[in-house]
Amino acid sequence: MSTTGPGPTITSQADDFPGWYNDVVRRAELADYSPVRGCMIIRPYGYAIWESMRDELDRHIKRTGHSNVYFPLFVPKSLLEKEAEHVEGFDPQVAWVTRAGGKELDEWLAIRPTSEAIIADSVKDWIQSYRDLPLLMNLWNNVVRWELRTRLFLRTAEFLWQEAHTFHATEAEAAAEVDTGLEAYRAVAEDWLAIPVVQGRKSEGEKFPGAVYSHSIEAMMRDTKALQAGTSHMLGQNFAKAADIRFLDRDNERKHPWGTSWGFSTRMVGATIMAHGDEAGLVLPPNVAPFQVVIVPIFRSEEDRVKVAAAIEQLEASLADVVTASGPLRWKTDWREETPGFKYNHWELRGVPLRLEVGPRDVAAGQGVLVRRIDRHKEPVPLASLAAELPERLATYQQAVFQRALDFRAANTRSLDTLDALRESIEVEGGFVMAPWCGSPECEQAVNEATGATIRCIPFDSPDEAGRCLVDGRPSERRVLFARAY
Amino acid sequence: MSTTGPGPTITSQADDFPGWYNDVVRRAELADYSPVRGCMIIRPYGYAIWESMRDELDRHIKRTGHSNVYFPLFVPKSLLEKEAEHVEGFDPQVAWVTRAGGKELDEWLAIRPTSEAIIADSVKDWIQSYRDLPLLMNLWNNVVRWELRTRLFLRTAEFLWQEAHTFHATEAEAAAEVDTGLEAYRAVAEDWLAIPVVQGRKSEGEKFPGAVYSHSIEAMMRDTKALQAGTSHMLGQNFAKAADIRFLDRDNERKHPWGTSWGFSTRMVGATIMAHGDEAGLVLPPNVAPFQVVIVPIFRSEEDRVKVAAAIEQLEASLADVVTASGPLRWKTDWREETPGFKYNHWELRGVPLRLEVGPRDVAAGQGVLVRRIDRHKEPVPLASLAAELPERLATYQQAVFQRALDFRAANTRSLDTLDALRESIEVEGGFVMAPWCGSPECEQAVNEATGATIRCIPFDSPDEAGRCLVDGRPSERRVLFARAY
Repeated sequence: MSTTGPGPTITSQADDFPGWYNDVVRRAELADYSPVRGCMIIRPYGYAIWESMRDELDRHIKRTGHSNVYFPLFVPKSLLEKEAEHVEGFDPQVAWVTRAGGKELDEWLAIRPTSEAIIADSVKDWIQSYRDLPLLMNLWNNVVRWELRTRLFLRTAEFLWQEAHTFHATEAEAAAEVDTGLEAYRAVAEDWLAIPVVQGRKSEGEKFPGAVYSHSIEAMMRDTKALQAGTSHMLGQNFAKAADIRFLDRDNERKHPWGTSWGFSTRMVGATIMAHGDEAGLVLPPNVAPFQVVIVPIFRSEEDRVKVAAAIEQLEASLADVVTASGPLRWKTDWREETPGFKYNHWELRGVPLRLEVGPRDVAAGQGVLVRRIDRHKEPVPLASLAAELPERLATYQQAVFQRALDFRAANTRSLDTLDALRESIEVEGGFVMAPWCGSPECEQAVNEATGATIRCIPFDSPDEAGRCLVDGRPSERRVLFARAY
Repeated sequence: MSTTGPGPTITSQADDFPGWYNDVVRRAELADYSPVRGCMIIRPYGYAIWESMRDELDRHIKRTGHSNVYFPLFVPKSLLEKEAEHVEGFDPQVAWVTRAGGKELDEWLAIRPTSEAIIADSVKDWIQSYRDLPLLMNLWNNVVRWELRTRLFLRTAEFLWQEAHTFHATEAEAAAEVDTGLEAYRAVAEDWLAIPVVQGRKSEGEKFPGAVYSHSIEAMMRDTKALQAGTSHMLGQNFAKAADIRFLDRDNERKHPWGTSWGFSTRMVGATIMAHGDEAGLVLPPNVAPFQVVIVPIFRSEEDRVKVAAAIEQLEASLADVVTASGPLRWKTDWREETPGFKYNHWELRGVPLRLEVGPRDVAAGQGVLVRRIDRHKEPVPLASLAAELPERLATYQQAVFQRALDFRAANTRSLDTLDALRESIEVEGGFVMAPWCGSPECEQAVNEATGATIRCIPFDSPDEAGRCLVDGRPSERRVLFARAY
């Protein structure tokens, strides 16, 4: 039954990570499968988490000068086919509308897998002069990519995302924009979702179809696998040429503008679950938690209930004005007719950062017992001063979640020099491996075939370090990040 | 060119209202046609207006206990066909996905024209007991209805909207929810968009396919035609029965829950344009205006420019903390290298409520000239106290926009008793006509065939008034609202 809690214990994270993930998503009522193959239903608790990260990213996007817009769901077949690499990359995953309004369509319409093609064609008339540039647009929408194997949030046939599309008068400006997009993702991942990320450049084999290059942020999940958490692409003049967009520059020459695009999706709800969760379920950073504090009244007699209720009512009045880093405090008092233990499990599964237990003896002492979800640390706290302390307590908690993830990543990242060492490390311990690579697609593929790991990115902060490629021994300029990935 | 203003004069509203509408939408850069038949591109200025009404409605929806969720874009054919009236109503407008992932699909997927069918099927497992009710959900998404004749914002093959879907243990609770939805729409229309609305019940012929009854709010546009601005439907147990949803009630009986649904779309951007606009373009209510104030510097010499810039800089510092009824003040100083006259036209076309002209003589007197868009009222205002006055000035302006629309509707609403009088009134003067009707679909249709007008609704505030139906003379209990409509 949907409102009566966690039910039986969830699958152990240590034993079966995918089973644990699935249990958490379903039992915490984040999302559900739908009658449509590969498509998900996002339930209130999951959608509230998405809204929090979406709104935070939207603030970053607007603050950096981008405007929200909307482009059609449909991309005519002929438009999708204009950029050759692009169509080759997406065609196998496209869902096609072939009939509408009771008739066969003259031209099939793709459900957008992404919007580069239709945007490039549409903005032709808007970009006439250098004065019309840069054109900085962002879309919040749904896209469809027909995936064979799907998993709630992580890989679904339909997902929600943000896709920014920008056009610039110079290559340098476009390159700076690629960085702006990636920085927005880094900030949301690290400062909002408490997920540390490695920033870097994708290899040629892993870049976006139609891009000159792609940057990404890569995060480590609790099973030590990697998850690509956002990508930002330099499109060069590829789409502008395909759609024949030209502008009159200051030097009176007509040129193709340079483009970028960058995207961040509901996948990040999955990343937040897998980056922080533990055996009891979700561990949510306070910034993104739908409830930051849950109050659990404890009583047996009616007399005690009245006392406890009075103390909680007084506390609640003081909570109304509390403002946290992510807006007004979000809290809930759980008065359901269930045992305290049931409620503890219920809210632990849902990852609520702080739980306040208030019983008759606490009330007599003017206090409650505050329990931290992340480490179950218990502490008696005076009720009179709690409201004033909560913003700092939540900020400290947010930092603790980030630090734990950072420590976990550090403990599971190794620097290795040979394919054998990498294979053994990936197979036995998992995690991230920093290893030298000559830059060739053949060596990249050899590692993948031998280990299942891929090059997640060439990290920006990987120092110059002369070495020998782990596959063919040719010179390597720096180490790159290998890992098995979602 | 997109950034160089209104260009030639727009079509006269008095001469050609549809031409005026189209010019305003295109020249004010609200929306544009796309390469996909009937689908629109919403540009930054238009999207900002949509975001404002969307966010306000979202606050109403959350405040009344509803949670945002997401359901799939696709509705399998067999699900859409479960509720007979529903499929009959929507089938002709459906776009079908028949191929995906390189293969023909076993079952066609409809692009949702609305989500009743897939939601009813999906929530079956969530509604087991009366304790799971009410289930109050809301979706912000895109829907597709293949329309033959389209017009930007007003009728497009794809549009953005909000659709609430709720389930209740009793019919009375569902009926109250239909009212909650309609009240949210009334509040957003009247208090945010300054559009007065008539609330009422749709006739049987105009109700939602699959509903027991439908309520709507109806607004008058500047050409005196009606526009349906939001609808709220009592679904009864129709969809619950079709999907076989049952819950165990307090009396230990298994029952079908009662459902409602209600929707509000990007059509309301079109309504805002047509309810308030005039010969110079948009007239936006301050709550929804992307810019509430535009400052236009006036100078010829460099010496004057410096003086004016200093005064404006000082003013801008005082504007940073101004909070209006719709959040922090939104303003812009137009420093483009264009004439003041060009800028006045540019911002009048875009409907900015207040324009502040600041020239060297104004600066010497410590003032600026404030011009109201709605009536071009001009007034010298001291710059030192302007910031403090703006919230009230904008609130007064918001009220003035509403009052003007209310007066316009009153001046164009007539109470008439015969079909001949109604026909002449509709043909010569247009507007709303309140007339007696016996309640039969035949008489409703006779009026439509004779005049092009339809019954917009049976207004809630239409008093009991015994009369004779304007078509067949049978008894009528009260007057209903007839009008030609968008």
